Amino acid sequence: MSSSFGTLFKLSTFGESHCPAIGAVVDGVPPRMPLTAEQIQQQLDRRRPGSNKLGTARNEADQVQILSGVENGLTLGTPIGLMVANTDQRPGDYGSMSRIPRPSHADYTYQAKYGIAASSGGGRASARETIARVAGGAIAEIFLREHYGIEIVAWVSSVGTTDAPNMDLASLSREQVDANDVRCPDETAAERMTNAILAAREAKDSIGGVISCVCRNVPAGWGEPAFDRLEALLGHAMLSLPASKGFEIGSGFAGSRQRGSQHNDPFVRKGEKLGTLTNNSGGVQGGISNGEPIYFRVAFKPTATIGLEQQTADYDGNPVTLAAKGRHDPCVVPRAVPIVEGMAALVLADLALIQRMRG
Amino acid sequence: MSSSFGTLFKLSTFGESHCPAIGAVVDGVPPRMPLTAEQIQQQLDRRRPGSNKLGTARNEADQVQILSGVENGLTLGTPIGLMVANTDQRPGDYGSMSRIPRPSHADYTYQAKYGIAASSGGGRASARETIARVAGGAIAEIFLREHYGIEIVAWVSSVGTTDAPNMDLASLSREQVDANDVRCPDETAAERMTNAILAAREAKDSIGGVISCVCRNVPAGWGEPAFDRLEALLGHAMLSLPASKGFEIGSGFAGSRQRGSQHNDPFVRKGEKLGTLTNNSGGVQGGISNGEPIYFRVAFKPTATIGLEQQTADYDGNPVTLAAKGRHDPCVVPRAVPIVEGMAALVLADLALIQRMRG
Amino acid sequence: MSSSFGTLFKLSTFGESHCPAIGAVVDGVPPRMPLTAEQIQQQLDRRRPGSNKLGTARNEADQVQILSGVENGLTLGTPIGLMVANTDQRPGDYGSMSRIPRPSHADYTYQAKYGIAASSGGGRASARETIARVAGGAIAEIFLREHYGIEIVAWVSSVGTTDAPNMDLASLSREQVDANDVRCPDETAAERMTNAILAAREAKDSIGGVISCVCRNVPAGWGEPAFDRLEALLGHAMLSLPASKGFEIGSGFAGSRQRGSQHNDPFVRKGEKLGTLTNNSGGVQGGISNGEPIYFRVAFKPTATIGLEQQTADYDGNPVTLAAKGRHDPCVVPRAVPIVEGMAALVLADLALIQRMRG
Amino acid sequence: MSSSFGTLFKLSTFGESHCPAIGAVVDGVPPRMPLTAEQIQQQLDRRRPGSNKLGTARNEADQVQILSGVENGLTLGTPIGLMVANTDQRPGDYGSMSRIPRPSHADYTYQAKYGIAASSGGGRASARETIARVAGGAIAEIFLREHYGIEIVAWVSSVGTTDAPNMDLASLSREQVDANDVRCPDETAAERMTNAILAAREAKDSIGGVISCVCRNVPAGWGEPAFDRLEALLGHAMLSLPASKGFEIGSGFAGSRQRGSQHNDPFVRKGEKLGTLTNNSGGVQGGISNGEPIYFRVAFKPTATIGLEQQTADYDGNPVTLAAKGRHDPCVVPRAVPIVEGMAALVLADLALIQRMRG
Repeated sequence: MSSSFGTLFKLSTFGESHCPAIGAVVDGVPPRMPLTAEQIQQQLDRRRPGSNKLGTARNEADQVQILSGVENGLTLGTPIGLMVANTDQRPGDYGSMSRIPRPSHADYTYQAKYGIAASSGGGRASARETIARVAGGAIAEIFLREHYGIEIVAWVSSVGTTDAPNMDLASLSREQVDANDVRCPDETAAERMTNAILAAREAKDSIGGVISCVCRNVPAGWGEPAFDRLEALLGHAMLSLPASKGFEIGSGFAGSRQRGSQHNDPFVRKGEKLGTLTNNSGGVQGGISNGEPIYFRVAFKPTATIGLEQQTADYDGNPVTLAAKGRHDPCVVPRAVPIVEGMAALVLADLALIQRMRG
Repeated sequence: MSSSFGTLFKLSTFGESHCPAIGAVVDGVPPRMPLTAEQIQQQLDRRRPGSNKLGTARNEADQVQILSGVENGLTLGTPIGLMVANTDQRPGDYGSMSRIPRPSHADYTYQAKYGIAASSGGGRASARETIARVAGGAIAEIFLREHYGIEIVAWVSSVGTTDAPNMDLASLSREQVDANDVRCPDETAAERMTNAILAAREAKDSIGGVISCVCRNVPAGWGEPAFDRLEALLGHAMLSLPASKGFEIGSGFAGSRQRGSQHNDPFVRKGEKLGTLTNNSGGVQGGISNGEPIYFRVAFKPTATIGLEQQTADYDGNPVTLAAKGRHDPCVVPRAVPIVEGMAALVLADLALIQRMRG
Repeated sequence: MSSSFGTLFKLSTFGESHCPAIGAVVDGVPPRMPLTAEQIQQQLDRRRPGSNKLGTARNEADQVQILSGVENGLTLGTPIGLMVANTDQRPGDYGSMSRIPRPSHADYTYQAKYGIAASSGGGRASARETIARVAGGAIAEIFLREHYGIEIVAWVSSVGTTDAPNMDLASLSREQVDANDVRCPDETAAERMTNAILAAREAKDSIGGVISCVCRNVPAGWGEPAFDRLEALLGHAMLSLPASKGFEIGSGFAGSRQRGSQHNDPFVRKGEKLGTLTNNSGGVQGGISNGEPIYFRVAFKPTATIGLEQQTADYDGNPVTLAAKGRHDPCVVPRAVPIVEGMAALVLADLALIQRMRG
Repeated sequence: MSSSFGTLFKLSTFGESHCPAIGAVVDGVPPRMPLTAEQIQQQLDRRRPGSNKLGTARNEADQVQILSGVENGLTLGTPIGLMVANTDQRPGDYGSMSRIPRPSHADYTYQAKYGIAASSGGGRASARETIARVAGGAIAEIFLREHYGIEIVAWVSSVGTTDAPNMDLASLSREQVDANDVRCPDETAAERMTNAILAAREAKDSIGGVISCVCRNVPAGWGEPAFDRLEALLGHAMLSLPASKGFEIGSGFAGSRQRGSQHNDPFVRKGEKLGTLTNNSGGVQGGISNGEPIYFRVAFKPTATIGLEQQTADYDGNPVTLAAKGRHDPCVVPRAVPIVEGMAALVLADLALIQRMRG
């Protein structure tokens, strides 16, 4: 249901935009694993609002506290409670919009679903809910790195109509990604993306984008046949992110335009193991990892809340003009990079534990 | 895990390509609902191999039996057991491939996962597993139609590089879709698609495609915040289908290239209710249905098993040439139309029951 | 929900008393495990009606078919579909009771829950549903025996007011249990129990009883803290059996009357391992197995359907006299022995797989 | 798994004895329900250590904070985050026992399971984990009372060998239960129970007991057939409590000694509805509530940690004498009363929401 993700490595989250705290329970973390709040904080800092010039003016420290499950720097194997206080609550900002549902925002659907609205409208649809995912995902990532040497790197591969060139999936690093505020490792593309975002902000408008992600060193054999295929769980994870509109793995939609003889990935010996010459499969065949890098893309729509005047209707159906207030990123993708990484880590950590049952 | 889908309206499936039967348990179906095997059979017949000239030569009756949960034509509210016998088993067809994993097929990954292979290689990755989904989905669809008037229509919107024009989402019917074998409601596009499939078959090759789907009359308020957003569950469902590589809802990847002022769907009075003027959201905002048609697309890669010679390697890494045998569709999308509809119905039926808890 | 049990080693069942078949899907069974229908049949035969002189006259072969998940005598690691046909359906037997809910039977509550009745009243409450449990449990038991050397033995420890003496938990075998029809390994007690059952039948009445069960060679460390403690899952499993009214582990209710100094199990060296001198804990401390035999008891009420005249009321509340028809065991415990063993095996197999995640 | 309970009304907990906080996420609470921290605090205060002369000297305020899911005194329908700080942490108390596993305590099994110990040994087995259950259960109880008028009352029905007489299930109130520290509504029995507890404490020993519980006004039709019968879920809930050893519903183990003609509950008209003359069923037939009071009993063993010297062994198997330190209740049942009520409420709230799907 709603607030939990995963079967064995399981994240349960709570918190809205304007309540006392955002938090999570991470269950299934193996015991005796080194873990500190600082390690989690690193990814949270990459997601933090106000961390760069492209984002929202909302500025929160977003300091995570570990409430349980860790003693003397080691996990106990018991549930890890995590909490991040909401220090910069300004419910008043949204008051003026209360009679007008923001177009393409969750205000209207939350009202339809619950018959009550949180102070910022669609409460759990808030981007702040993703704090809990990044925190939980950071723990998953540490587990994957320590136990399997897995590396997960996401980056911005397009903003609006500007596309980055293909990256070297084998070597791309977070340092390269974080070299600029827009988190696109190609400097030329990054500059054009930055300009596109600043232009959108200037126009009180917003702009969409795409995040790409690679997971390296995932062993062959992860992913469950039928309903919990690796790409199905990744798609579930990514499409559960605010503003996401699409997911594709490997060749994706472009692959649907090819013939099998072009698209198939021939096997070839790679050292001691069998690998594939190409990777249109994106590291997954029949829903199960094949040992090649897992590679996927996630599409994000432009932020719904914009300052530009929009012709719309209030809850009673009366035509109105809305120029939304509040502090929002004109483009979500730069800050969504660690969120995508965290969700990918949660999926892989869960499948790792599930595959262990076949030990 | 592996073989189950859904929380309250739950499908559990079993069966490989060459075992005695494919089957399913459908739990959570409300009581006192009229249901016959004939109703389920209708969708199975649309999925059946050998039903049209574009598909595999494998010809199976695929007759469904209801084993439990229904008496005197009415559901009891208890689990419905379903079974379809595998009458046309020919494990021998695949014997010659046993030392060579088929490129981009599940042979290799199943071996890596389980250390044992079913007689056709990646057993549960078989398209025959989808029989159980279509059967379960047919029951979900009946529930949605009877209780909410929901209509679900999927169609082939591209094959290879041939795209169908946009359809009228409000009126498109299954009759229009089934007017030709390729299941594209536009006759001109359908003819070109048919030719593309026949050309691929002629070349002992295969070809990919895209299925689009619309769900009409879904009430506002369905879908769970955070992890079980409506689009996340739809994406999970669709990306769990064999050969799927991508999913997008509403504007999808194209929407990521727009600005918010273009992309936002303004509200407008529609009779007694609030609706939206455009539907870039694809019927979902903040993960919850808004009452507009739900609209999404699924990309399928070209069939992996092809008769054309491929340079690849055997399990030991030795270079080999493979010309695969067996009976496979050169293009999966025409027969996948009822599967997409069935999975969409399962997602919606589950969310309908979950939303009832807020009664 | 209703029809599934377990997290990783998962049983889903279907079927009522008078539908075409009873069946199950067993998911999570490890691959490459030898398995035949004959092995499953052995436990089914112990549960089978008509197998001894103390049971119902209903006589069914209850032959199990494996529909999937096994090839060449080895499990594939995929879901195992199981089916047992209902060959001796006599819905007519119950027709005369349709306006009168049987006292202490599920007729009334199923009607209240579903607003519809299966042909035998409370459909899924039928003892025939336990066929699917015994079949699934037999597979779990084979897994536990093959992988861990675990032995599970249940027996009848009381019928009515006749109690068997304590057994030697270390050596008790199924052969000893099956030495008589009542399945009590103490011959003197068995004779008195048999007489009590025959007397109840003679009087058109029924009689209750208790089943005890021991699980040997369970490694220390199985069971999940907090909600899924080993005794909680065992209790859940046993209290889900038709006619069960109570569950206790180790010292049980009697232990609640003691002081800690009497009740505590002191540790002592046992070969290479730490063991306990006494076993009031029943093999479980803090919800986790401690390596000692797991020992528990399950109370079953007397069969609700009796031929004796009862003063009761019909659905409209009118006083009536009911002398129930149908074929029922006067005492459920002899045939419930393999059911208790099967459910215990399902709990342990699931916990075994879950503990593997801590690798 | 471990830290979650429930399907739709779901509690996830975290926290050990000596970490910064104990907490919970309660998901599935319907929206627009009045809820304050004070309401939750009432039940926590009944569980609080140091609240009466019979309990541990550990004195903690155990003040609950609502972190999310509630605004302006109304639930939002989103997950409710709860936290209680551990203010009186004294890990040092247990240091001396670190090489000696306490007999019948979770020290040894946690070490076997996780290969690491929390500062108080079996971390999640701590009674402090039940804080999260009482808090979550209090919310469930408010829901059941507001929506269905359900009343849940538990009381101490035995301590050691002292049994309370039968209570009037129709009228028993929490005021009567709380009239004395031992929480037995019969004054004579209460006095003897109090003396038994004080005598055990005096002897540096401990003593077991039984809690009984009644749930009134539960509508007919709650509980799921097969695996999630009402008594199975109640048994699961109660046997997941620290120190519990047994569960019985209605006639329980005593009922297994009767004949059907004695045990069956005849139907009789009660106002507009059908009721039963007796209630040996304990309000449940076929796993589903029948509208009569639900009545069950839970056995608790004597506290494992005692000051009396015990002959036992250390982790290496060497014989040692242990006189345990720490602050523990000599008898858990008085303070476990609100925990039993809370767990019962969680079970019923979940089944209420599940039954709504049949709306």
